Amino acid sequence: MPDYTLREVQQQVDIWVQEVGKGYWSPHEMLARMVEEVGETARLINHLYGPKKKKESEPTQELAGEIADIMFALVCLANSQGIDLQEAFEVMMAKYTTRDKERYKSHTEN
Amino acid sequence: MPDYTLREVQQQVDIWVQEVGKGYWSPHEMLARMVEEVGETARLINHLYGPKKKKESEPTQELAGEIADIMFALVCLANSQGIDLQEAFEVMMAKYTTRDKERYKSHTEN
Amino acid sequence: MPDYTLREVQQQVDIWVQEVGKGYWSPHEMLARMVEEVGETARLINHLYGPKKKKESEPTQELAGEIADIMFALVCLANSQGIDLQEAFEVMMAKYTTRDKERYKSHTEN
Amino acid sequence: MPDYTLREVQQQVDIWVQEVGKGYWSPHEMLARMVEEVGETARLINHLYGPKKKKESEPTQELAGEIADIMFALVCLANSQGIDLQEAFEVMMAKYTTRDKERYKSHTEN
Repeated sequence: MPDYTLREVQQQVDIWVQEVGKGYWSPHEMLARMVEEVGETARLINHLYGPKKKKESEPTQELAGEIADIMFALVCLANSQGIDLQEAFEVMMAKYTTRDKERYKSHTEN
Repeated sequence: MPDYTLREVQQQVDIWVQEVGKGYWSPHEMLARMVEEVGETARLINHLYGPKKKKESEPTQELAGEIADIMFALVCLANSQGIDLQEAFEVMMAKYTTRDKERYKSHTEN
Repeated sequence: MPDYTLREVQQQVDIWVQEVGKGYWSPHEMLARMVEEVGETARLINHLYGPKKKKESEPTQELAGEIADIMFALVCLANSQGIDLQEAFEVMMAKYTTRDKERYKSHTEN
Repeated sequence: MPDYTLREVQQQVDIWVQEVGKGYWSPHEMLARMVEEVGETARLINHLYGPKKKKESEPTQELAGEIADIMFALVCLANSQGIDLQEAFEVMMAKYTTRDKERYKSHTEN
């Protein structure tokens, strides 16, 4: 399968939501879903790297599944608000890079 | 600028983390960062769509920024654990689609 | 049973953690646990009040359980850092009340 | 000031919400507020104990403030749903203690 671009990811999620999910939820409902998925990731991180460490045959695969679930919720929120992830990503990377350069110039850390 | 694939997104974040961020944090630290960003998104959603509704000149742009910040934290977590988002996305979409078909067949909802 | 004070709640949790839980986790691990519990609450709120509304025989009881789980994680974090909830509560209520008075005086909303 | 019981904490928050806050928000809005506060706590924990460690003159006081903010959001959610924290706490402690005894009997860990 060819590599997906961010825009293709958004399109595929949109098709799924329209055809299977019967439309987007409200922003608050999508946020709650994202929080649920982040919570499952938190649980897994405590299991894998925390106080209740347990052997996992496929830790990466399980974590990959949780991360994909968060990504899905995130893409739903973006789609429903007409947000283009490609553009948002570019703006963010430019901001992070500029912020960092300023930080080194001034030798201050916030 | 050409459209990024998920793999190019992961590469760009990796370059940033190695060169600017001085390496990946621990899973718990990256989780905490993601929770911080989800919290800022929650705050914004309450401002835009909740009890403290306020006029925003550029609501979509601000929300796009928060979503990109979550995406960055998510990609960092994936990168640090050697997780390929393209593959994770494919597995997830296949799972969601199969689960849904089963659901319709059995007419049960969980 | 007599009503518990916040300090008695902290003592009871401390006894449980020392005797049963074998000591406090690190701040990041306790945060991850709290995030897990908030995630379960988010899931329940979507089930009870969201897009996937379902009939619940005892919705309040289930939500009470989730809220208590968050409270437990919160008290663990406070205990481990030597934080007195009674004092923290007083400071917070004073802050909220003062902030509100100022808000009404200036007729501005932030 | 005398020690507050959980029920007095719920009453004080209720008075504040009715008089100052102009009533309870929806469950999803209160959840979003709680997520915002958990996010601020996550940020502080990364600052105090994480990769961006910084000297704090009063780390405990700042963390106490964040924990109190989460507690406030949690009490709001409980109040709005008619949940009695004293009872929820008792049920939870009984459950945790029983679960633990079973765990030791069977020498299994989940």
